[in-house]
Amino acid sequence: MKKQDTQYMRQALALAEKGTGNTSPNPMVGAVIVKDGKVIGQGWHKKAGGPHAEIFALEEAGADAKGATMYVTLEPCNHHGKTPPCSHAVLKAGIAKVIAAIKDPNPKAQGGLKYLQENGVETQWGVCEAEARKQNEFFIKHVTTGRPFVVCKCAATLDGRIATRIGDSKWITGEESRAYVHKMRHAMDAILVGINTVRMDDPSLTARLEDGQGNDPLRVILDSRLSMDPSAKMLRQDSDSGTLIFCGPQAPEVKRDALEKAGAEIVEAPEMSGFLNLDFICRNLGERGLNSLLIEGGGHVHSSALKSGVVDKVCLFYAPKILCGDDGVPMFAGPGPDFMADSIELKDITLHRFGNDFMVEGYVMDLFDERD
Amino acid sequence: MKKQDTQYMRQALALAEKGTGNTSPNPMVGAVIVKDGKVIGQGWHKKAGGPHAEIFALEEAGADAKGATMYVTLEPCNHHGKTPPCSHAVLKAGIAKVIAAIKDPNPKAQGGLKYLQENGVETQWGVCEAEARKQNEFFIKHVTTGRPFVVCKCAATLDGRIATRIGDSKWITGEESRAYVHKMRHAMDAILVGINTVRMDDPSLTARLEDGQGNDPLRVILDSRLSMDPSAKMLRQDSDSGTLIFCGPQAPEVKRDALEKAGAEIVEAPEMSGFLNLDFICRNLGERGLNSLLIEGGGHVHSSALKSGVVDKVCLFYAPKILCGDDGVPMFAGPGPDFMADSIELKDITLHRFGNDFMVEGYVMDLFDERD
Repeated sequence: MKKQDTQYMRQALALAEKGTGNTSPNPMVGAVIVKDGKVIGQGWHKKAGGPHAEIFALEEAGADAKGATMYVTLEPCNHHGKTPPCSHAVLKAGIAKVIAAIKDPNPKAQGGLKYLQENGVETQWGVCEAEARKQNEFFIKHVTTGRPFVVCKCAATLDGRIATRIGDSKWITGEESRAYVHKMRHAMDAILVGINTVRMDDPSLTARLEDGQGNDPLRVILDSRLSMDPSAKMLRQDSDSGTLIFCGPQAPEVKRDALEKAGAEIVEAPEMSGFLNLDFICRNLGERGLNSLLIEGGGHVHSSALKSGVVDKVCLFYAPKILCGDDGVPMFAGPGPDFMADSIELKDITLHRFGNDFMVEGYVMDLFDERD
Repeated sequence: MKKQDTQYMRQALALAEKGTGNTSPNPMVGAVIVKDGKVIGQGWHKKAGGPHAEIFALEEAGADAKGATMYVTLEPCNHHGKTPPCSHAVLKAGIAKVIAAIKDPNPKAQGGLKYLQENGVETQWGVCEAEARKQNEFFIKHVTTGRPFVVCKCAATLDGRIATRIGDSKWITGEESRAYVHKMRHAMDAILVGINTVRMDDPSLTARLEDGQGNDPLRVILDSRLSMDPSAKMLRQDSDSGTLIFCGPQAPEVKRDALEKAGAEIVEAPEMSGFLNLDFICRNLGERGLNSLLIEGGGHVHSSALKSGVVDKVCLFYAPKILCGDDGVPMFAGPGPDFMADSIELKDITLHRFGNDFMVEGYVMDLFDERD
C-alpha cells in the first residue's frame, strides 16, 4: 500500500465524518479525486436521500476527472435507490482508477467495484479498512443484521457509582464529557433509558451540540407499567424527534391513552423475568430503519442490556473521583456471577481523555471470539 | 532552558531510576558530567549507605572533571551523613557548573548549591523539576513530614468490583498488570493489607520481579483482634523482610505470643470507631525510616485509608471486563456520602496501559487544593 493512498483515504474519511448524524439509514461516505498529485474534487454524503459523495466529488472535478484516481471510503453503489448508481457516474466521468476503503456490506447496493472493473476501470480496496469499518459500524451492523448497533454509555466515579445513595448524580463528569455525550446523541438514531431514570431526572434526552445544533435521537423508554407522567419534560419540549415507549403486556389501557394523547408512541413488548425483552425491542427499532441505539441507563437497564447480548460497544466515562462507599448506585445492578471468568469481556479497548475525565471504549466480546 | 540541559537531565533521571527499591531512606539520584558536548562521567546512588551519584560520576570523569558541567537530579548534599558532603567533592574536582533538577528537601542535607556558588561554581536548578519531584515523591514526603508516602492500589473490573459475590478474584487483571504490581512492591518500603485479605488469600506479599529478583517490602497487617493464623504463608516463607502486625487494645495476649513466636512483630494501635487509627500507624512507619507504603486492600481498608486522609496517590488497575451485578465486592466498602460533591477528588490523572488492562494513577486532592 502506498503512503499517499493512505493519506488521500484519510482525507476522504475526514470528509465522510462531516456527515455524522445526518446520513442514517445510509452510511457516511467521503470521496477524493486525485490527478497528477493534486486533489481536483472532494465530496461527502451530506444527507440521507441526497447525492452520494462520489457525485459531489465528480462535479467538483468536472472534465478533469478523466484519467484521475478516486479514493472513496465505501465501494460506489451499484443500484438505483433514491439516486442512480454511482458506479455508472464514475465510469461515465472517465475515472481511471477507484480505490475503496471497504466493500459495500449492503447486498442490494454492492457490486460497484466489480461493475467498474468489468468496464475497464482499475479497482482496489482495503486502504484504511479498519478505520472505514469503524466509521460506519452503525450502518454495517444494521445492513447486515437488521438491528441497530447498540452502545451502552455510563458515567461513573472511579469506584463505579453512577449516583450517591440518595441519588445525587449532578454532576459526576465534567463539561467536556457531557459535551461529547451530546455529540454521541447527535450521531445516533435513538436513545434508550429506563423509567426510573425518567422519574429521577426528568431528562430531555436531546442532542445539544456546542453550536446550539444537533439532531435529536428518537427517545425510547422502557416502561413496563406505563407509569410515566404524561407531563414529563421530554413530551412537552420542542424537539425534532419523538418519544417511543415500550410497555409490558400488563400496562393499563388508561395510561396508554394519556401518554398517546401527550404525543408518545406506545408499543407492547414481551417480558422475560420481569424485564422487557430487549431483543424484541432492538428488532423493532431495526425494522424502523434505525442504525444505532444509545443506552443511557440506569443500572438495571445496563445490566439487562449487557446480559441479553444486544450491546455491541460500551462507552464508560469516569470522573477523577472516588465516592468511597458501597451504598452508592452501581453502574450495573442486579445479581452478578459467582466467578470472574463469567464476567463480560471487552476487546479493542481505547482510552479517551475529556478534560479531567476519561472514557473507556470497548467492544463486547462475542462468545465466539477468542478469550485470552 | 536549553534543549541539551533537558536532555542531559533526563539521562541523569534515567540513571537515578536504576536505584529503584534500593536507596530508601535516601532519595534516588543520578548524575551526568558533560564537557565539550560529551558525557565524561555518569553515576547513580545504588544503595542506602553507599556513595552518592555525584561521587561515581566524578570517579568516572577523573581529572577531566575540571571545568565540566554536572547535571544532577537532586542538589548535592552538604552534610556529613554516612558519606562526606558531595558539595565538597564537586568543588574539589573543579566542576565549573552544577545544574540540579530540584533542591534537597531535607533540611539536614540542603545547602549544597549555596556552598558551591559561594565558592565560585556556577549553579542552576529547576531543569526537569516536575519529573525529579515525582521520581522522589516517596523520599520528599518522608523527609518533609516524617510519614511515608502512601499509595492505595486496587485491581477491579470496569464496574469497580475487586471480587465476585463469593469472593472469586483470581485473576481480575492480566499478567502485565500483576508484573507491574510486583515492581511497585519492589520500589516501596512497606505493604499493608487487612486481616480479611490475609484470611481470604493467604498472600505472600513479596516482590517477585520478572528476573526472579525483588526487595520484599515490610509486610504490615491490620488485625485488631490478632486473629491471624500463626501458620500463615507470609510468616513461614523465605523473605528478605519481616511482618509487622498492628492490633487494637483488646487483642488477646495469648494470640500475641503465638504470632511473635512465629516471627511477627506486634504493635498496639489506638482504635477509632472500630478501625485501627491509620494516622498513628503511618506515623509509626515513618519513625522507622520507611519512605513509602503500598496499601493493597481490601475494600474496607481502602475506604478507611482514603477517609482518614493518609493516602497520597491511588493506582487503580482495571481489567477490560464488566462483572455486571451489584453484589460483587466493591473497591471501597462502608457507607458513602450523600452528595457527589463530597466524593474524594483526584488530580494529575495519568492513564497507563498494561496489555489489555489499564491503570489510573491520581493524586488525592488536598482540601486546600483548588477544586474546579
